[in-house]
Amino acid sequence: MIMQNIYALKGNICYSKDQKTIEAVENGYVVVENETSRGVFRTLPEKWANAPVTDYGDKLIIPGLVDLHIHAPQYAFRGTGMDLELLDWLNTYTFPEEARYGDLEYAELAYSLFADDLSKGATTRAVVFATVHVPATMLLMEKLERSGIVSLVGKVNMDRSSPAGLQEESAERSANDTIGWLHSCVGKFKNTSPILTPRFIPSCSDDLMRRLGDIQKAFKLPLQSHLSENQSEIEWVSELCPWSMSYGDAYAQFGMFGGENVNAVMAHCVWPTSGEIELIRKNGVYVAHCPQSNMNLASGIAPVRKFLEKNLNVGLGSDVAGGSSASVFRAMSDSIQVSKLYWRLVDGDSAPLTVEEAFYLGTLGGGRFFGKAGSFDDGFEFDAVIIDDGSIIGPAKPNIHDRLSKVIYLSDDRNIIAKYVRGEICGG
Amino acid sequence: MIMQNIYALKGNICYSKDQKTIEAVENGYVVVENETSRGVFRTLPEKWANAPVTDYGDKLIIPGLVDLHIHAPQYAFRGTGMDLELLDWLNTYTFPEEARYGDLEYAELAYSLFADDLSKGATTRAVVFATVHVPATMLLMEKLERSGIVSLVGKVNMDRSSPAGLQEESAERSANDTIGWLHSCVGKFKNTSPILTPRFIPSCSDDLMRRLGDIQKAFKLPLQSHLSENQSEIEWVSELCPWSMSYGDAYAQFGMFGGENVNAVMAHCVWPTSGEIELIRKNGVYVAHCPQSNMNLASGIAPVRKFLEKNLNVGLGSDVAGGSSASVFRAMSDSIQVSKLYWRLVDGDSAPLTVEEAFYLGTLGGGRFFGKAGSFDDGFEFDAVIIDDGSIIGPAKPNIHDRLSKVIYLSDDRNIIAKYVRGEICGG
Repeated sequence: MIMQNIYALKGNICYSKDQKTIEAVENGYVVVENETSRGVFRTLPEKWANAPVTDYGDKLIIPGLVDLHIHAPQYAFRGTGMDLELLDWLNTYTFPEEARYGDLEYAELAYSLFADDLSKGATTRAVVFATVHVPATMLLMEKLERSGIVSLVGKVNMDRSSPAGLQEESAERSANDTIGWLHSCVGKFKNTSPILTPRFIPSCSDDLMRRLGDIQKAFKLPLQSHLSENQSEIEWVSELCPWSMSYGDAYAQFGMFGGENVNAVMAHCVWPTSGEIELIRKNGVYVAHCPQSNMNLASGIAPVRKFLEKNLNVGLGSDVAGGSSASVFRAMSDSIQVSKLYWRLVDGDSAPLTVEEAFYLGTLGGGRFFGKAGSFDDGFEFDAVIIDDGSIIGPAKPNIHDRLSKVIYLSDDRNIIAKYVRGEICGG
Repeated sequence: MIMQNIYALKGNICYSKDQKTIEAVENGYVVVENETSRGVFRTLPEKWANAPVTDYGDKLIIPGLVDLHIHAPQYAFRGTGMDLELLDWLNTYTFPEEARYGDLEYAELAYSLFADDLSKGATTRAVVFATVHVPATMLLMEKLERSGIVSLVGKVNMDRSSPAGLQEESAERSANDTIGWLHSCVGKFKNTSPILTPRFIPSCSDDLMRRLGDIQKAFKLPLQSHLSENQSEIEWVSELCPWSMSYGDAYAQFGMFGGENVNAVMAHCVWPTSGEIELIRKNGVYVAHCPQSNMNLASGIAPVRKFLEKNLNVGLGSDVAGGSSASVFRAMSDSIQVSKLYWRLVDGDSAPLTVEEAFYLGTLGGGRFFGKAGSFDDGFEFDAVIIDDGSIIGPAKPNIHDRLSKVIYLSDDRNIIAKYVRGEICGG
């Protein structure tokens, strides 16, 4: 194959090497070959001397952000109905709103807004809940494909404890609809793929879970769900699954909790037992930490310091509309802020998260769920966001680390001047 | 006097009647006479039938927001240096930054940014810390006057426990500089006035506090300071003032803690004793609740539910740069979010704040510190913000209450299309 489609971007490049370390290369180069980064360099290596260079001057170049948990059909009502806890919130606000997605006209309006706003932000990869409705889920996938970002999208399964108009009529019907949906979307898109999405244990009968386990194996699908978010929810699961040792174990007994052949991400994990944490670690399950949602629904604060100490796979989720903001920068600053309250009010041994750790969680930490994403190291798929921080930098000429910190705490989509996904410029 | 300068604004009008109640009048009128609101009406009363009406259509019209606590010289470095608690944060980041304001060239750059950004936001009234430097404080007052908002600005006093380059050389010098500053600024501006500003007990010797008490009486000044933010700070104050019953009592013994002739606002009150709370109530001291700062500096969560139950005067503060964001909308949503964590993690009897309460705190609650401000009821000074929420409203046509909730959680300065202060349009 002839060497082709190689280019470099020049600017102030920041990316996570690991949980503790942000590599910051001022006036550096990141070289991209097709979809893939070839690494970051202080000077452009000789062998790429002829590659075209886009010079972003004093701007910041960072990896695209990764949202491990967001509900597309809840985007329209984000920022309202924050006066209830999880189970009442679902019944009062969320399920009635999700029922609207049986209407494709409404879905068209609401999913357009969702996809447009997502494309303006810094997110380049997202793991997305849709609703039970197959046509609306296909519409969402088409819109996300056009947005240019990489996404895993799930038609939701729920065959119990849900209101009429949303609950699927049987486990068999839910499974069959899922299979039909998979046949129509697998391999259809470049950047948009399906992910198996049992809503959570209370919404899915044992029969449905067994059928979904078979589908997961047959299609080798990744899987997303919710775990140990709220104390009443956990109690309910223990009643529904008296044969399980924990909420996580209930998923595991259906073959849906990581392990060798299941790439699984579980949102929240605010109140995990030590056995659950060990199972998460052993099975390589990803935790989507959703700090804003956990505040809004009064769920609590997830023990993220413990997760990091035990080397769990952890990333961030906006969890719209439990979370009000779809910004992963906001999720980073929220994760630091709630970790400080956890340290002050709950456990003086759990040191607060640092800027380095929060940035890691929102890039490489979550990016690994997609394979090699979330970093600029050689071999990673090249997702990047170019940030003009002129409006927030201030007169004191802060160093690159402090500029990145300001971007995390203060930037909005006006500061984003370009976005690259898998080597291609987005919406350009 | 001939009836003059009367006009009405038409739109969806929302304002707090009290802590629990938001009055929402769709397609209503608020009538303004000179600087003052004449009230809100469903139809325009006959006697004002000839008043010119500005029709804002479907837009929201709300009272201007009130920031009871913000440090202007910390604006430039907001969003950085969030890895320390209060006392170390002051010594490591804040005091060195504030020392720069001896240089008027730096102050010109930094205060321009501060005043410009403040004028773009929804804040119409602010209680502002400057630094010890008189010339830079005058510069700040001039810039705030030009911004159109109403502000109380304090030259800071600090004659102990502070670094060279920032600490004033003696109590006498600090007091004399303050008197000189007051002579040059009292009555100089329409919207900008001085407020007495002993930084906090650890920065002010007993001698200085006594002199400032005399200055307060002579000039009948309002007063701002900090109270019970951090546990190490409180311990330090108890060592410095062994004769006091509490941190608040130390201020009180210098005649600086409310009461008949002192309009005082104290920031934070995260760890008040029951005696302090009673003193705050008895003396009518205002509490500036600064939830984001209290997260960022790991101070904790102020017991705001208790303050409201005891009918304390409470408003919101952004506390930049302890807080990263200068938005009072953000302070409202932060106040709700941290109250939910307080309820979940600290005290199950302290019900979370509602949207109504948070909106009250950021408008009428803080506005009362300025006299009749923060509401549209007859006789209040007319400060208003006109909000186009088209970008966040979503396709489901939410009611006015939910639209206001979305504005609180999601809006930014792009949603603000006009601002009125004391009856005049700002920056128009």
